Amino acid sequence: MGTRAAIAGASGYAGGELLRVLAGHPEFEIGALTANSSAGTALGAHQPHLHPLADRILAETTPETLAGHDVVFLALPHGQSGPIAEQLGGDVLVVDCGADFRLADAADWEHYYGGAHAGTWPYGLPELPGNRERLRATRRIAVPGCYPTVSLLALFPAYAAGLAEPEAVIVAASGTSGAGRAPKPNLLGSEVMGSMSAYGVGGVHRHTPEITQELSAVAGHPVTVSFTPTLAPMSRGILATCSARAAPGVTAQGLRDAYADVYAGEPFVRLLPEGQWPATAMTLGANTAAVQVALDERAGRVVAVAAIDNLTKGTAGGAVQSANLALGLPEAMGLTTIGVAP
Amino acid sequence: MGTRAAIAGASGYAGGELLRVLAGHPEFEIGALTANSSAGTALGAHQPHLHPLADRILAETTPETLAGHDVVFLALPHGQSGPIAEQLGGDVLVVDCGADFRLADAADWEHYYGGAHAGTWPYGLPELPGNRERLRATRRIAVPGCYPTVSLLALFPAYAAGLAEPEAVIVAASGTSGAGRAPKPNLLGSEVMGSMSAYGVGGVHRHTPEITQELSAVAGHPVTVSFTPTLAPMSRGILATCSARAAPGVTAQGLRDAYADVYAGEPFVRLLPEGQWPATAMTLGANTAAVQVALDERAGRVVAVAAIDNLTKGTAGGAVQSANLALGLPEAMGLTTIGVAP
Amino acid sequence: MGTRAAIAGASGYAGGELLRVLAGHPEFEIGALTANSSAGTALGAHQPHLHPLADRILAETTPETLAGHDVVFLALPHGQSGPIAEQLGGDVLVVDCGADFRLADAADWEHYYGGAHAGTWPYGLPELPGNRERLRATRRIAVPGCYPTVSLLALFPAYAAGLAEPEAVIVAASGTSGAGRAPKPNLLGSEVMGSMSAYGVGGVHRHTPEITQELSAVAGHPVTVSFTPTLAPMSRGILATCSARAAPGVTAQGLRDAYADVYAGEPFVRLLPEGQWPATAMTLGANTAAVQVALDERAGRVVAVAAIDNLTKGTAGGAVQSANLALGLPEAMGLTTIGVAP
Amino acid sequence: MGTRAAIAGASGYAGGELLRVLAGHPEFEIGALTANSSAGTALGAHQPHLHPLADRILAETTPETLAGHDVVFLALPHGQSGPIAEQLGGDVLVVDCGADFRLADAADWEHYYGGAHAGTWPYGLPELPGNRERLRATRRIAVPGCYPTVSLLALFPAYAAGLAEPEAVIVAASGTSGAGRAPKPNLLGSEVMGSMSAYGVGGVHRHTPEITQELSAVAGHPVTVSFTPTLAPMSRGILATCSARAAPGVTAQGLRDAYADVYAGEPFVRLLPEGQWPATAMTLGANTAAVQVALDERAGRVVAVAAIDNLTKGTAGGAVQSANLALGLPEAMGLTTIGVAP
Repeated sequence: MGTRAAIAGASGYAGGELLRVLAGHPEFEIGALTANSSAGTALGAHQPHLHPLADRILAETTPETLAGHDVVFLALPHGQSGPIAEQLGGDVLVVDCGADFRLADAADWEHYYGGAHAGTWPYGLPELPGNRERLRATRRIAVPGCYPTVSLLALFPAYAAGLAEPEAVIVAASGTSGAGRAPKPNLLGSEVMGSMSAYGVGGVHRHTPEITQELSAVAGHPVTVSFTPTLAPMSRGILATCSARAAPGVTAQGLRDAYADVYAGEPFVRLLPEGQWPATAMTLGANTAAVQVALDERAGRVVAVAAIDNLTKGTAGGAVQSANLALGLPEAMGLTTIGVAP
Repeated sequence: MGTRAAIAGASGYAGGELLRVLAGHPEFEIGALTANSSAGTALGAHQPHLHPLADRILAETTPETLAGHDVVFLALPHGQSGPIAEQLGGDVLVVDCGADFRLADAADWEHYYGGAHAGTWPYGLPELPGNRERLRATRRIAVPGCYPTVSLLALFPAYAAGLAEPEAVIVAASGTSGAGRAPKPNLLGSEVMGSMSAYGVGGVHRHTPEITQELSAVAGHPVTVSFTPTLAPMSRGILATCSARAAPGVTAQGLRDAYADVYAGEPFVRLLPEGQWPATAMTLGANTAAVQVALDERAGRVVAVAAIDNLTKGTAGGAVQSANLALGLPEAMGLTTIGVAP
Repeated sequence: MGTRAAIAGASGYAGGELLRVLAGHPEFEIGALTANSSAGTALGAHQPHLHPLADRILAETTPETLAGHDVVFLALPHGQSGPIAEQLGGDVLVVDCGADFRLADAADWEHYYGGAHAGTWPYGLPELPGNRERLRATRRIAVPGCYPTVSLLALFPAYAAGLAEPEAVIVAASGTSGAGRAPKPNLLGSEVMGSMSAYGVGGVHRHTPEITQELSAVAGHPVTVSFTPTLAPMSRGILATCSARAAPGVTAQGLRDAYADVYAGEPFVRLLPEGQWPATAMTLGANTAAVQVALDERAGRVVAVAAIDNLTKGTAGGAVQSANLALGLPEAMGLTTIGVAP
Repeated sequence: MGTRAAIAGASGYAGGELLRVLAGHPEFEIGALTANSSAGTALGAHQPHLHPLADRILAETTPETLAGHDVVFLALPHGQSGPIAEQLGGDVLVVDCGADFRLADAADWEHYYGGAHAGTWPYGLPELPGNRERLRATRRIAVPGCYPTVSLLALFPAYAAGLAEPEAVIVAASGTSGAGRAPKPNLLGSEVMGSMSAYGVGGVHRHTPEITQELSAVAGHPVTVSFTPTLAPMSRGILATCSARAAPGVTAQGLRDAYADVYAGEPFVRLLPEGQWPATAMTLGANTAAVQVALDERAGRVVAVAAIDNLTKGTAGGAVQSANLALGLPEAMGLTTIGVAP
């Protein structure tokens, strides 16, 4: 009875969010929780907010502990999902929140991540054209990165409708949970509170080729992407400010109509009323994206802004949304569209 | 089909949280949403995180707009609930998140709030001795203040077991949402970020007589309370640090046992494992309290600390918990015990 | 003995920062402090951090209260400086922290601000080519906006050296003090903490024509600017992420050399070592800018990032730096290059 | 020419603040900067806000690198100052920001810190009775802990005047910089932002015996102290809420007069006007304390609240204030009383 799910990497932020989402899902039963260095300790020592699961003991992340489940969610550092996934049966639904199976081009993988390319799985962003069909027919899902999720939701309608020139500029501000839980000096509260900082500037961030790949696919021709991530003094959320030169003849109304058409039926994307702009607080803890778009007529650019919760729609909620599709469940099952604010 | 609920004060923080909780509750159907100065505008302009309710229009707060519902939740400034409640039928469940019906002593009301005392309703903190029975038999509920909720959950087991002397000292740090949504200079982000401040010092805060009343009732004799609220640079959450001189003969183990006994069966209060101390992040968005207690043998004091989300367990979640009891529903229905972290 | 300075608008954030800077300046003596609605109250009620000035009483902002000073600093809402300045003698140094005298094009003023254009004064960003000479010879200074300050310091060396194509894209994240002290619901701590939001999107922000004007002047030909401001959960600081298509033949080394040449002798701008990227915390409370630049060879863009404290280098410190020049004092007198961190 | 100062532990938060204060001090010349694991790297990699010192290279912390200076400031983990200090000449002024020489009672040292007691040096809180004389005559200074500094400034006037009973209750909220720079999971920005947490509850925090020792000395009889530290979501600042039962016959006016008398001539302590309560933002970056006191007549308690910047008045500023005295310089030299706000 129910669908039994294992979570590998349950002591980290992505793993914790997966547990939060799955614990509120009517179909899933939470099975094995695994970790690496924290194996043998109680979940409550790492995730005290997961009150009803606090006494669960973390197992070691091995193919054996993950065996015997209907779904396995992998929330592991990049490079670790590939070897694990190989040993899981082909009938098991494997949902990888890491980067291992996102990129189609092995050269991109090697350039940005190094090491051997593990392969390419269907891309778990159901909103992109054609993806729902692919996700309904797969046992393997590559969950998008958090920056790609928000950037693509901001920009893809413009490229799908041919309204933007093929040079996109994206500046995104992320909460610190996107950097994970491993303690590093620059992620200390004392360092990040009260401060905005840039990092991974100049096209070197690993999410760059992923955004490039998906925008190009939507556009039907190569799109170059200038992507700059910044770190914001907040735990959760990403705000992406995206722009591209407007294609000839684009009007403000035509732009808005294109976005309204694409997002009319989407359960998790809200095109805001004109005059209201996205804030990450609109989406905290929800599987939603808030999107707005404008035409800057003086500068001749389409400017689109989107906000998500990097851990929910950007990771765990998006993973469950895609898993719902692969399992033949209603896409929105167990996923809230109501954020926690203020 | 379903229980129809109206929310008065839907544009404020307490009202927004009531909507968040009720929208996830399987039994309630959300009826009229009312406001004062925001009447006539869409909810989404004030509560953009409540995505599926964004297009609902706010009505004016009058007995007429609130009529025809099974439950009316009042989230109004103090002094406004009394007149409204008088005009609602006796068979309607009225749940007042304001202060109007919390105090039993009219002199306390006049001293701390001024004006005429509206009356006294059953106190919506089910965890206190005898309260569940009272709440199951009422059509009128006075939801506790947020500071009293967290302070009482921290301290009442010690007084119920006779382990603490009758002079309690409470210092609590609250997020800014507790101060409401009316814009005041001292609540600007620029003022509160990066700063802790004290206010209402010296026994003048209005929650002082409420805490005193309930602790005294639990103890069976008068307890004096020194209560100091402070404002913390966060939106949600209260951490209360409470202490009292230990009664003669109290041991650390006896103290812990008393708390373990009281909270063993409680669905929403977690006595943390020894060595783990409450953080408000454990409870964000959840209807839970995290509690810990210690005996300071050098100073001879019982020290108890509790954390809640002021808007959830401290207001809207607590309100729904009590309403569940009054409606004969399972007490925990529709209320999550899983917080949003990090 | 000393230079007597009056500050109009002393109860606001810019005024408070002017006082902080002037109080530590060996040459200035603080004269009249004026305000509008706060006239008659003690400064300490508004600026309790200005300990030694706490008992000073605010006068009303009139030409009379501002008369009899060597320097008048105006920290007033836009549109109010013009009328005041007219009535101050031509020998008084008037330093306007507002927008009234920044724009050269009356049509720009009318489009972005409305009303009559007050005129154009020398632009108080000494780092721009030719500005030091102009500032040394003037009694009237238009202090740049905070966003223009940081954006120009990030980008102008690329345009001065002909290394960037004339379409600049700027996304900047500002602390909330940039929005001033008037209480508005969207600036409440509860709203801004934990959230990034966009505003003024699509070229409508008033700092857009100012950035355009100055970049075009440096480049020697028209530059279009796509500028998007965002609000970050912090009180102070701006991080600007700026990019433009690289001119043909630009190399990473050539780019870096151009910045190094421009900033080699600048007392307040630090081109960070390669690999280190700006954070606003590097500049908090200091009159400094931290700058870094990279060439994104895949996307073909110059990417420059700068951080400042919006109230110090972005307003009050910049104002004093320019005033030092106009008064024949050492440019760096009284201005710290050491921030407050962490 | 000038007084040459070495700083041991220059890569940490206390060391960075010492450098910030000393760089603005007209008498000190900054000599050797030392570190442990960061030895050999540039200061700018750790303290990028110290712009003019960014290229200074950190030496190893040894008696040799610290030799040849007039003053040595030690900002080292507890237990490390003792061995170093032994090898510095008796004519060198040694200012220890660590705990090694604060406690008079070796048993207290062993209980709270473990290991051998290094000794007792004059206590660097000039505001306490008799301390200025001791500090003027010493070559060895034990800088108080940050919590003791703020707690003592809040409470000692009440004890000095005999207005409080000998059981003090202190709850203090500290910014995260007080916990230092070593990366630990619980100090990550993701964990601390948006959250208040308790730690060291029940009398186990190491600053407890220090507060007890000094309050007892001021009172002239033993005072017990219940001290609970909490962690607030901010980088700097401590707010201490302190109370004790009022002695018989105490009046509100008598209480206020006692504080006004004690603090009338103090350059760094501001007793706020009645009705204004301390906020840490009043003191950020300044060597000041903001203090307020009230009598809670219902509860019969004296309640005193104080705010400081834990790194400035609580560590580095306090250290320089005491060093000024020991060197025969004006006590306030080089120390600002103006905070950075908002």
